[in-house]
Amino acid sequence: MFEARLKEAAQQVEAHLTEVMAPLGDLPVVAAMRYASAGGKRLRAFLVMETARLHGVKPEHAIWAATAIEAIHAYSLVHDDLPCMDDDDLRRGLPTTHIKWDECTAVLAGDALQTLGFECVSRPDCHPNAEVRAALTVSLARAAGAQGMVLGQALDIAAETASTPLTLEEITALQAGKTGALIVWSATAGAVMAQADTAPLQRYATDLGLAFQIADDILDVEGDAATVGKAVGKDADAGKATFVSLLGLEGAKAQAARLVAQACEALSAYGDAADALRDAARFVVARDS
Amino acid sequence: MFEARLKEAAQQVEAHLTEVMAPLGDLPVVAAMRYASAGGKRLRAFLVMETARLHGVKPEHAIWAATAIEAIHAYSLVHDDLPCMDDDDLRRGLPTTHIKWDECTAVLAGDALQTLGFECVSRPDCHPNAEVRAALTVSLARAAGAQGMVLGQALDIAAETASTPLTLEEITALQAGKTGALIVWSATAGAVMAQADTAPLQRYATDLGLAFQIADDILDVEGDAATVGKAVGKDADAGKATFVSLLGLEGAKAQAARLVAQACEALSAYGDAADALRDAARFVVARDS
Repeated sequence: MFEARLKEAAQQVEAHLTEVMAPLGDLPVVAAMRYASAGGKRLRAFLVMETARLHGVKPEHAIWAATAIEAIHAYSLVHDDLPCMDDDDLRRGLPTTHIKWDECTAVLAGDALQTLGFECVSRPDCHPNAEVRAALTVSLARAAGAQGMVLGQALDIAAETASTPLTLEEITALQAGKTGALIVWSATAGAVMAQADTAPLQRYATDLGLAFQIADDILDVEGDAATVGKAVGKDADAGKATFVSLLGLEGAKAQAARLVAQACEALSAYGDAADALRDAARFVVARDS
Repeated sequence: MFEARLKEAAQQVEAHLTEVMAPLGDLPVVAAMRYASAGGKRLRAFLVMETARLHGVKPEHAIWAATAIEAIHAYSLVHDDLPCMDDDDLRRGLPTTHIKWDECTAVLAGDALQTLGFECVSRPDCHPNAEVRAALTVSLARAAGAQGMVLGQALDIAAETASTPLTLEEITALQAGKTGALIVWSATAGAVMAQADTAPLQRYATDLGLAFQIADDILDVEGDAATVGKAVGKDADAGKATFVSLLGLEGAKAQAARLVAQACEALSAYGDAADALRDAARFVVARDS
């Protein structure tokens, strides 16, 4: 059921991104926006659509929040891959945006994707209640900005030149910003849109986000570039502290499994209705890309 | 009166930016955000505060919209100055953000300033009515995104490698996006916040934005770098079409004067109460930096 719903969410958000960007014309920067926001697992879109379903929020509203988070996620990847940042040539098995076009186009396309994300979540289409839209917008800004995702990226860069490797506590804080904040926003969006209690989904998503990052670190060690779709072994080569370097490979796998179990338990109040979300947590640590 | 109000708006927005960024800590990326958003004429903040005053909107609400637009404007300058874009070392007489720090920090600081702008305009502090906040957010996104500012920047870059110089019509369209869209947003914000007719301010701001850009092109020819605070003569050196190359220096000055007169006329319904806005239009073409 989870796989079908993940696929469904991916198709919906893909179609919706196409529709939303249709009026933007065909300049290279817009072509780059389309390219950079195509493909991917669409885990964040799934989390929005599934938690919306769980709370009885209409899918025609939720799709706007799902599109917003995927646009913001895509912007972060385009800028992250730039030569002055992670300097990656490959993403999802394809040339990164600045390789396919150039750095200037990649900077602008990332900028405009961020803007598009905020437009989507503030549009009347996203929710009939403007208070809810404004709340979604403010929480999205906090998740993406200098107290969320950008904070995590800045800490990650600072770590590269630090004289001592990060501790487990520091890496956990870094990842809570870098990947955790957008995942938590996605998985609480349904409850926010229904004006319901977000606490259980907040706990679920915090554990899920951390498990996701531990799995990423494991993939960087165990995966092969062709399957993962991007360069692997970069962290070890750079001598960066990761969950694997700090916990060992088996320790990291055990910790990821514990977090998944805990994430599933956090959903107990939802009963069987949350099974797709539980499957998502298991998928996140079992994936090979 | 205009000069006093411009100065007052500048001081208010400067203080407010400091307050809004206080909780963000002291990482280099946050220091770069503070640096990049400090100083400048604050014309956009003035336009928000002044049109808010004209419409009886409380300054404690308007200051959030003013802070939002200055954060978005600052983000655009940081990214515009990057080596892959305009490659400028000097801005307002000081080293640009990527010179003072590095490219990576400049990309992230610009990203987070954009995010901060959307947070400010969506926060309950900005307006008691969430519908108004959401409308401000959507219009700000349209002004900043791939149909507004980013479109203008992309057209500007395309022009650099185009085989024929742009026509007057094309340059006008380019500038309407690149600088005009944020100026129009700023000068209509007061009417939007009062849920009043935006048409007169829309006409005023469209002419003002174009006059502003013509004045910029004149400064690039007539100004000296020390006073202007950034490199001059770049457009002519690059063989780029500008309002000056297309209209001649005197023709450009006459066109700017016509636009200022037209902008002032558009405010007739406001009577004397709009005199500071009329002075602003005259200032925009008379400035030396």
